[in-house]
Amino acid sequence: MTYCAALRLKDGIIFTSDTRTNAGIDQIGVYKKMYTFCTPGERAIFIQTAGNLATSQGVLHRLSRDIEMDRGTHLLNIDSLYAAAVMIGDLSRKIAHHSAEGAMAGDVNFTSTFIIGGQIIGQLPQLYMVYSEGNCISATIDTPFFQLGESKYGKPILDRSIAYDSSLDDGIRAMMVSFDSTLRSNLSVGMPLDLCVYRNDSFITTPGYRITADDPYFSGISSRWSQGLRDLLVSFPPPPQDYYD
Amino acid sequence: MTYCAALRLKDGIIFTSDTRTNAGIDQIGVYKKMYTFCTPGERAIFIQTAGNLATSQGVLHRLSRDIEMDRGTHLLNIDSLYAAAVMIGDLSRKIAHHSAEGAMAGDVNFTSTFIIGGQIIGQLPQLYMVYSEGNCISATIDTPFFQLGESKYGKPILDRSIAYDSSLDDGIRAMMVSFDSTLRSNLSVGMPLDLCVYRNDSFITTPGYRITADDPYFSGISSRWSQGLRDLLVSFPPPPQDYYD
Repeated sequence: MTYCAALRLKDGIIFTSDTRTNAGIDQIGVYKKMYTFCTPGERAIFIQTAGNLATSQGVLHRLSRDIEMDRGTHLLNIDSLYAAAVMIGDLSRKIAHHSAEGAMAGDVNFTSTFIIGGQIIGQLPQLYMVYSEGNCISATIDTPFFQLGESKYGKPILDRSIAYDSSLDDGIRAMMVSFDSTLRSNLSVGMPLDLCVYRNDSFITTPGYRITADDPYFSGISSRWSQGLRDLLVSFPPPPQDYYD
Repeated sequence: MTYCAALRLKDGIIFTSDTRTNAGIDQIGVYKKMYTFCTPGERAIFIQTAGNLATSQGVLHRLSRDIEMDRGTHLLNIDSLYAAAVMIGDLSRKIAHHSAEGAMAGDVNFTSTFIIGGQIIGQLPQLYMVYSEGNCISATIDTPFFQLGESKYGKPILDRSIAYDSSLDDGIRAMMVSFDSTLRSNLSVGMPLDLCVYRNDSFITTPGYRITADDPYFSGISSRWSQGLRDLLVSFPPPPQDYYD
């Protein structure tokens, strides 16, 4: 399993991914699920992926190879993030179908999903979710975030605390809590985490920050959050007598 | 879908169930998913159910009918909660298998799951989760709660805030938040909620309290919680500069 999330806020886009892959609980690996592509000053593109690792890597390999060979339309010359999302969807679908054709057993899921975001000069920052069917949707002001993989445990905090107008600092804080909740509840989502922050109109991809299990800021958020929730709960008035009757 | 949860705490057991059933988003109904069986002063038994409504109702019909007819071993004469859990598991499996044999299409899930809890005089209070396969597990001091159905959205708050030593008041507060988080995130879980609180050694089942969408305590918890989380988040120190690099 995997957990990735991306928030498109008024000042930029925040991407966070875990790094655990698993095929059964005794077959666990650490793989990066966040990729960046950049022509400084002109375009910055971030991709996150979840699902079948072979399919995800197949797509990323092809995207990288096309750039290296400067072959046809690729991420560094494509004319919009939307077109890039469609290209990824097409590639992903093709690779998954190819693997499925070769499958001997029927119960393997070869599909992958992707988040792609960033900005191309002259255009607004964009964030897309690419489904395994190859189609895609865009983040909006009403729905400013996307999640991939094990999304349920970490969704309530994003629902309650994140809006398009949230600051980048608040976005990172909420991300840390969302990941902490997911890490606690699902063993198949694991440390370290990869974090990338894109500031609007910067047209650069930062190397990203790797958050390890002993990261002081993350650990601090985690313990403050747990304590804060308990304090908040006990600050509520006691339930009315009706509730006991 | 359904969301039910039960907490076995040091002073008693708290049961909460939603009431929405659905077969597609345009076929929604309100059904009670909480049932009580009692011989005052001697035994109090609470049952919650999720899954296929016909199977769940089939099991409950049979349990009730055996009591009415005073036929063989039933909930009001069975000698332990564990035996009752096993009986429910057997019934549920039998009914689900019978329906599956008659099914024309292969993709219908006829299984149900159950939580059964309460107390029989001379014994400790018990809480069991009955799986669709008919087997069951008991709540423990380390793992004092069970959930049925759409459990993921509401699990982090229970994980973080509930321990066996929590008071009943704190248990109800955490339940309200857990249900509020689930209601916000999944349309197939719906109001009203049914709440029952069993106090250890009382050997009575209360009628239970029905929490409607305009319930002042629930609404108060919901808005205080949302505001409290936002206040807590912004009280955190800003992320270190590394996080942006």
